[in-house]
Amino acid sequence: MVNEIAEMLRKGGAVVYGDFTLASGKKSHYYIDVKSVLTNPEILGRIGHKIQEMCEFDVVAGVAVGGVPIAVAVSLASRLPYAIIRSSDKTHGKENRIIGDVREKKVVLVEDVITSGGSVLYGIEELRLQGAHVECVVAIVDRKAGAEKTLADMGIALLALTNAAEILEGIQR
Amino acid sequence: MVNEIAEMLRKGGAVVYGDFTLASGKKSHYYIDVKSVLTNPEILGRIGHKIQEMCEFDVVAGVAVGGVPIAVAVSLASRLPYAIIRSSDKTHGKENRIIGDVREKKVVLVEDVITSGGSVLYGIEELRLQGAHVECVVAIVDRKAGAEKTLADMGIALLALTNAAEILEGIQR
Repeated sequence: MVNEIAEMLRKGGAVVYGDFTLASGKKSHYYIDVKSVLTNPEILGRIGHKIQEMCEFDVVAGVAVGGVPIAVAVSLASRLPYAIIRSSDKTHGKENRIIGDVREKKVVLVEDVITSGGSVLYGIEELRLQGAHVECVVAIVDRKAGAEKTLADMGIALLALTNAAEILEGIQR
Repeated sequence: MVNEIAEMLRKGGAVVYGDFTLASGKKSHYYIDVKSVLTNPEILGRIGHKIQEMCEFDVVAGVAVGGVPIAVAVSLASRLPYAIIRSSDKTHGKENRIIGDVREKKVVLVEDVITSGGSVLYGIEELRLQGAHVECVVAIVDRKAGAEKTLADMGIALLALTNAAEILEGIQR
């Protein structure tokens, strides 16, 4: 069965060809660039509606900068507030690390591409420090590099709209 | 005449009381916090629709992180793409400084609060380096601290939905 989101991302230009060195050090002839594709409002809007149906939440949060457009799209689709977790390299007081109110709220964390889950783990830590309840993470693309197991060990479910294999699959067709 | 946006921001909690030291070094008993108020999707959505009617553009851009939710809301309202200018403190190659395609495009730059315009000037410079045409900046709140003149000297119009005085005005009523 064709994954509709994978098809939309591929047609939107998510697969970029060239010579790339991945974060792991491996060489690759393609790279999946979801951030640029999401700047198409039709695609972002579709994804926003899709994610809001996937789990229950009071607040949708995203780590800056990649998670922010997704969190905003889910917020506008669901009419529930969003929150932004500032990136860790900026010097902000702890109290300013998160924009938006997450205390005692059920928060879904959204991300564009999840690999081992580093960015998401940082986000979850910051959210929990502010008293949020995080039970669910939704990624657009799961690169299947261990994040699901890491999150499961923390009692958090990882849901993904698609994965790298599904996006690349359609190229041969 | 009451400014509808000023009223909405004030009622949303944009005026925070306490003892603050402003960027200029001056002491203040209040602080205007627009970022938190925008996490309310009703307010953000209303502002997105309002801005898209204010000027013509092919792409709506925002500097991370404050400008991003606004750019996304305008993009979803207008069905035109958005772009993100990453903040200057992150080490990215020049080619990765902007997410989204702005080359040869008419770009409107959006911002939450504009004071002297530093963040906006950085954004304009990056956009122009990538071949964008920037003729118009829209801020939600103009703090009236010189940005309008600075931008006018560069041939760029500054439009604002409201200003600090209008937001505070309603408090006495």
